[in-house]
Amino acid sequence: MIPTDRALQQVLEWGRSLTGFADEHGVEAVRGGQYILQRIHPSLRDTSARTGRDPLDETLIVAFYRELALLFWLDDCNDLDLIAPEQLAAVEQALGQGVPCVLPGFEGCAVLRTSLAALAYDPRDYAQLLYHTRCYCAALRAGHAQVARAERWSYAEYLQNGVDSIAYTNVFCCLSLLWGLDMATLRAHPAFRRVLRLISAIGRLQNDLHGREKDESAGEGANAAILLLQRYPAMPVVEFLKDELAGHTRMLHRVMAQEPFPPPWGPLIEAMAAIRAQYYQTSTSRYRSDAAGGGQRAPA
Amino acid sequence: MIPTDRALQQVLEWGRSLTGFADEHGVEAVRGGQYILQRIHPSLRDTSARTGRDPLDETLIVAFYRELALLFWLDDCNDLDLIAPEQLAAVEQALGQGVPCVLPGFEGCAVLRTSLAALAYDPRDYAQLLYHTRCYCAALRAGHAQVARAERWSYAEYLQNGVDSIAYTNVFCCLSLLWGLDMATLRAHPAFRRVLRLISAIGRLQNDLHGREKDESAGEGANAAILLLQRYPAMPVVEFLKDELAGHTRMLHRVMAQEPFPPPWGPLIEAMAAIRAQYYQTSTSRYRSDAAGGGQRAPA
Repeated sequence: MIPTDRALQQVLEWGRSLTGFADEHGVEAVRGGQYILQRIHPSLRDTSARTGRDPLDETLIVAFYRELALLFWLDDCNDLDLIAPEQLAAVEQALGQGVPCVLPGFEGCAVLRTSLAALAYDPRDYAQLLYHTRCYCAALRAGHAQVARAERWSYAEYLQNGVDSIAYTNVFCCLSLLWGLDMATLRAHPAFRRVLRLISAIGRLQNDLHGREKDESAGEGANAAILLLQRYPAMPVVEFLKDELAGHTRMLHRVMAQEPFPPPWGPLIEAMAAIRAQYYQTSTSRYRSDAAGGGQRAPA
Repeated sequence: MIPTDRALQQVLEWGRSLTGFADEHGVEAVRGGQYILQRIHPSLRDTSARTGRDPLDETLIVAFYRELALLFWLDDCNDLDLIAPEQLAAVEQALGQGVPCVLPGFEGCAVLRTSLAALAYDPRDYAQLLYHTRCYCAALRAGHAQVARAERWSYAEYLQNGVDSIAYTNVFCCLSLLWGLDMATLRAHPAFRRVLRLISAIGRLQNDLHGREKDESAGEGANAAILLLQRYPAMPVVEFLKDELAGHTRMLHRVMAQEPFPPPWGPLIEAMAAIRAQYYQTSTSRYRSDAAGGGQRAPA
């Protein structure tokens, strides 16, 4: 695989064309992206016979890392007010529609979208990537707005929004676009759609459980544990959420046992389900509960 | 509409060919079916110009009531052991595959399946009806088995199973089959599938909240409130479930406001969402919390 330093360099270089982009966004993107690509590497090598897409192709890998970095940056644009509201609105519009941003300072958006459109193995994946970008931005916005409102979400509404804001489907869609994983066809299967929902909910629950203490001390309300505790002070929320996580994981494994998907989907879903142990725990900043500043935020 | 007595007569006559079938199954089916058909009548009249299917057609109406009665009977076969386990297995096999039952005493299964196959406006609806019958039977079976197990379900698993065991999708599919509501085409839309999931979860939560006391006194464990209270004794479960119901209802209305569906789907979904106030409350047996015997069980 492309050396980490060279990949990171290319992500940071691109990130300089995005106002508010920080090295951390690039570092976490490369770290998370490497974790995923390493886990699915053998399986991706097998599919390359069909697709002709090399798992070690530097252009594809860097495009993947950049998309992940974009998701981290968008998250912080919402949570940390890295850019002005009118800038964020223009960025969301540009990224969700695949058009250049009308405001200066965000040239990286169009660069990445143009490159992904050109690299798409299946053009349907690019259309879906734009769609999931719109969902992700809407979920980040809704999550942010909701914390300030008097009328809090129910658990169901929070989790539904959290399924979009964790951005796992964005990650899958980008991988499919770059390495021809045929996600557009698989979406026609109810079991595949169920797997997407389940793994996203699992990601959200893992993220919130892992980040609870950090979010609490940061006064961050967009966390299932904090939301439930505010609504129901007597509820054993951590126990409840751990049981929910275990339940979602059992459901995921049941669906996947019944209907196996073509490679590399099995290892990919497993890699995402294992992300808590394999990735969060080794984070040096974003996901460390004793790290200074920032919450445990989606994506990946 | 066909007089209630005459409709009920035809349902009970058919029901005599099902071992364990009780008058109550027919009575509740006609009552619930009438409620739904009355609520969507104006809308169904409008679609009849396209489909040529009269909302007042006696054959269609009786077939609908019979399918509802079948769902009630199946529910009690599981919960009240109306028939022997090997009989139930044979019935499930027959109904889910659309073949005659290999055991005697269940001729009504093949009669109804043959009639629905012949009446289907769109044959895809018949195939889906069989599929949803399999899901419903599997969910009843799983719900029943799970109460006896030491390892209880998480809330997520319970609700997922409850979405199938409430059988709302079966009801919609049967209506679509009989009156040409184009459900097979609508299923291609993510928003429609979301509406199906949401209204089914709403039905499950309404059912369990309404039947909590009755289920408690009947020692019935297949109820979200009872399950949660057993797992988390300190949790304000009724408040939590009421909030969940309100949350699901808000999500339902948001989706439906964004993407209106062709008639009669709007009034139909609204009718199902209002079923608690309009139907449960007026039940003389099955859904009255002071009624003797039986729990608040799905469907409709």
